[in-house]
Amino acid sequence: MLQAQGVTERLAHFIVATRWDHLPPAVVHEAKRALMNFFAVALTGSHDPTIETALKVLAGFSGGGEAAIIGRRERIDALNAAFLNAAGANVLDFCDTHVSTAIHPTAPVAPALLALAETKPVSGRDVLLALVLGNEIECRIGLAMSPGHYRKGWHITSTCGVFGAAAGAGKLLGLGTTQMIWALGIAAMQSAGICECLGTPAKSVGVGNAARNGLLSALLAAKNFEGPLDPLNGVQGYYHAMGEQPDLTALTKTLGDNWEILGTAYKPYPCGFVIHPVLDCVLDWRREHSDAVVERVVVTGNPLLATRTDRPKIATGREAQVSTQHAVAAALITGQAGVAQFTDACVNDPQVSTLRGKVGVVRDESFPPTSAAVEIVTADGQTHRVSQKAARGSAENPMSDNALEAKLRAAARDAIPGHDISPLIAAIWDLDNKQDVSRLATLAVPRQ
Amino acid sequence: MLQAQGVTERLAHFIVATRWDHLPPAVVHEAKRALMNFFAVALTGSHDPTIETALKVLAGFSGGGEAAIIGRRERIDALNAAFLNAAGANVLDFCDTHVSTAIHPTAPVAPALLALAETKPVSGRDVLLALVLGNEIECRIGLAMSPGHYRKGWHITSTCGVFGAAAGAGKLLGLGTTQMIWALGIAAMQSAGICECLGTPAKSVGVGNAARNGLLSALLAAKNFEGPLDPLNGVQGYYHAMGEQPDLTALTKTLGDNWEILGTAYKPYPCGFVIHPVLDCVLDWRREHSDAVVERVVVTGNPLLATRTDRPKIATGREAQVSTQHAVAAALITGQAGVAQFTDACVNDPQVSTLRGKVGVVRDESFPPTSAAVEIVTADGQTHRVSQKAARGSAENPMSDNALEAKLRAAARDAIPGHDISPLIAAIWDLDNKQDVSRLATLAVPRQ
Repeated sequence: MLQAQGVTERLAHFIVATRWDHLPPAVVHEAKRALMNFFAVALTGSHDPTIETALKVLAGFSGGGEAAIIGRRERIDALNAAFLNAAGANVLDFCDTHVSTAIHPTAPVAPALLALAETKPVSGRDVLLALVLGNEIECRIGLAMSPGHYRKGWHITSTCGVFGAAAGAGKLLGLGTTQMIWALGIAAMQSAGICECLGTPAKSVGVGNAARNGLLSALLAAKNFEGPLDPLNGVQGYYHAMGEQPDLTALTKTLGDNWEILGTAYKPYPCGFVIHPVLDCVLDWRREHSDAVVERVVVTGNPLLATRTDRPKIATGREAQVSTQHAVAAALITGQAGVAQFTDACVNDPQVSTLRGKVGVVRDESFPPTSAAVEIVTADGQTHRVSQKAARGSAENPMSDNALEAKLRAAARDAIPGHDISPLIAAIWDLDNKQDVSRLATLAVPRQ
Repeated sequence: MLQAQGVTERLAHFIVATRWDHLPPAVVHEAKRALMNFFAVALTGSHDPTIETALKVLAGFSGGGEAAIIGRRERIDALNAAFLNAAGANVLDFCDTHVSTAIHPTAPVAPALLALAETKPVSGRDVLLALVLGNEIECRIGLAMSPGHYRKGWHITSTCGVFGAAAGAGKLLGLGTTQMIWALGIAAMQSAGICECLGTPAKSVGVGNAARNGLLSALLAAKNFEGPLDPLNGVQGYYHAMGEQPDLTALTKTLGDNWEILGTAYKPYPCGFVIHPVLDCVLDWRREHSDAVVERVVVTGNPLLATRTDRPKIATGREAQVSTQHAVAAALITGQAGVAQFTDACVNDPQVSTLRGKVGVVRDESFPPTSAAVEIVTADGQTHRVSQKAARGSAENPMSDNALEAKLRAAARDAIPGHDISPLIAAIWDLDNKQDVSRLATLAVPRQ
C-alpha cells in the first residue's frame, strides 16, 4: 500500500523525469493517432454555434493573435485558443475515449500544447511526449476515483482534463518537480464540471476551461507561483473534497510501463457508441445493395441499446445522436453516418423520417454492447441478415490508421472545403522528425 | 417542503425581478460598507507578489485596457481585471466574512461588477443592487450545503463566489429569467476550489476565477449560450455531484425579506479572527500606556484561541497571522496591528521576537471566541488587566462606518502613497445618487 503523503510528488517526478527515449514505439504511434483524431473532431466542431458564440465573446478580451483556431481564419491569444480548440473538439461528442474512465483525454490536452507550441520553439518529439504524459496523468487521476466520480455527476473529462493540460504544458515548459507539483495544485484549484450540463453549450465551457486553465496552471508554476505539497491527497486535498477514497495504486502502479493512451478508442460515427455496431452492419449492407428499397428493419443488440437509443420520434440533431431508428434510416438513405446525418436538417428529411418509423429495436442479453445483428426486409420480399461482433472503433476492433486519416479528410472537406489537408496528415505521421511544430495547428486553418 | 425541481429557476426569477426600490435602506447602506471594505482589502493586496506574478502572466494574453486594476497603474481587459481584483482583495485574508457560511462574499462579486461597469453605462444604484443580489445568491447557495461543504475541504468562497459573480453580472447585463438560469448553469460548470491550497498563491487562482468565470458566465448567457434547466438541483446537478443533501429551504426561504449581506462581518486586523479581541485589549492599553515597559503578558480566551494560535515560534508573516504571541508582541512594540505587523520583516524584528517569548496563552471555556482577557505585567512590577467582551468587527460589535473609512484610508496610504482617496470614499457613500460609475474603480488607482 502506498503512503498517502506525497502521491502528487510521485506523479510530478514521473512527468519531469520521463524522456522521449522512454516511450515505446507503440505509444508514440498511438499519440500520433490521437492527434489525427483530435484534428478531425476539432475541425468538425469548429463552426458549431457554441464555438461561434464563445469566440465572439472571448475575442473582445483577447490580446494577441499568436495562436490558431483550428478550422477558422481568426487567430487569438494562446489561452483562448486552448479554450476554443478544446471546446470545439468535444462539442459534438466525437472525441477519443479512455475506455476505463470514459474520459475524452486528448481534447483538453492537445490544444494546450498546440497553443504553447506557437509561442516557443518545441519539436515534434516534445509535443508527442507532452501529449502522452498529459493523457497519462489525466487518465490516472480519473482512474483512482472511478467509477464513483463520474457516477456522482462529475464531468470527468473536464475535472481531470485540467490536470492533463497542466501536466502536458508543464512538460513542454520544462518545469522542475516542485514546479510541477505547484502546477498540479493550481489545476486542482480549478477542477470543475458537472454532467447536468451535458447536451447543452454549458458543457463546452468545462472542456474549454480544462485546456485553458491547465495551460494557465503550468505558466504560473513556471514563474514560481506556488501551491500546496500534495494537492491530490492532502488532508483537505482534491480527493478528500471530492468525497473519494482514492485507489492510490491506480495513480502510480506500473507508471512508465503501462501507458493509458493505449487504452484509447476512437469513434467512426458521431453518435452514441452503442449504435456503432448497428451502423457497421447497415453501411456495409448498403454498399453492396445500393439500389435495394428497404421495407422494414429489425435491430437486435445488448439491452443497453434499447434502453438508451430506442427513440423512433425525435426532433433535433442532438436527439438523433441517441436514436437507433434515426441512425439506421439516415445511413440507409444517404449511405453515410457522418456529422451531416445527425443534424436537424437530416432529422426533418421526409424520406429519413418515414424510414425511422419502420425500424424496430430488440433486446438480447447474449449480445455484448459492441455487437449487433440487423435484419433488413426489402421491397422484393427478401430478408437480408448482417451482423457485427465487435464494432469498428471498439477495443477489439480499433479504427485503422487509414480510417483515422479518412475521418480527418472527411472533417476537413466539410469544415474547410477546398483546403488541402494532406500536409497536416503527413506532418502528424512524421511528427517525431519535425524540429519545429509551431505551424502544426495552422495546417488545419483555411488559407487567408 | 419545496419541490426539488426548478430551484435554480426560483433563484433566477428572484434576481431578475428584484428592483432597486425593493432594497431596504439598511441593505443599501451595508452594500456601501461592503464596497468600502472591498476597496480597502483590494488596495492592501494590490502589490502582493502573488498578484504581481499573476498580472505578469495574464497581461501577455490580454486584449484591452478597458478596466482598472485597483491600486495599480496598469490597465487590462475586463475578464482579467475581475480575476486580479478578486485575487488581490482576498490574498491577505483581510476580506469581509458571511458569518453563517465563512464565505468572503464581496471579493468575487464586486470585481466582476466594477469591470463590467467600465464597459457599459450603469448607475450607482444598478451596481449596488447587483452587489446585494450577487452576495445573496452566493451566500444562499453556500448556506444550503453548510457546514458540510467547507468541512470536506471545498474553498467555499471560490466555489460559491462564481455563482455570486454570475448573478450580479447577469443582473447588470439585464438578463431574462431563462438567461439567468443559463448563467447559473455555466457558473455551476466552473465551480471549483479546495482548501488544501489555502496559505499558498494557488488559492488566489480560485478566488480570481470565481470573479472572472462568473462574469464570463453572464456574458455568454447574454448571447443565449444555453445551459441546463436546473443546474443546482438536477439529477446530475451541482449539489448531487458535491454529494450534498442540500437544505433547499436555505435557498429560497424569506428570499427578498431577509438579506444575507446584513450577516457580514469586517476585519479590523489582517489576522485570524480569534486573535481580534486580544488585539483590541492590547492596542487600547498601549494607547493609554505608551511609555510602559512590558515584562510579561498572559492572554486568556476560548480554547479555540490556544488551539489555533498558541504559536510562540514562527518564521514568516503568514504564520504570524495565526500567532497570538506575535500579534501581541508586534502590537505592543509598534502600537499597531496592520499589514506591516504581519510581514516577514516584523517577525524578524529582534524586539518583537524577544517579546513573543514572554507571552502565554490560557484556555478558558467560559470565554466565547470573540472575547478575551489580557494581563500585562510591566517593568515597575504593576499588573494591568484589560478585557474585551465582543471583538470589534464581530456581529455584536460591528466596525463603524468611520472605522471602515479609516481602514480604506490606511490601505490607500500604504498601497498608493500620496494618492487622495477621499473622492472614492465620498463616491461610495453617495453611490445611490451617481448616474455613471464607470470611473469608480479608477478612483483607487494612482495618477499616471
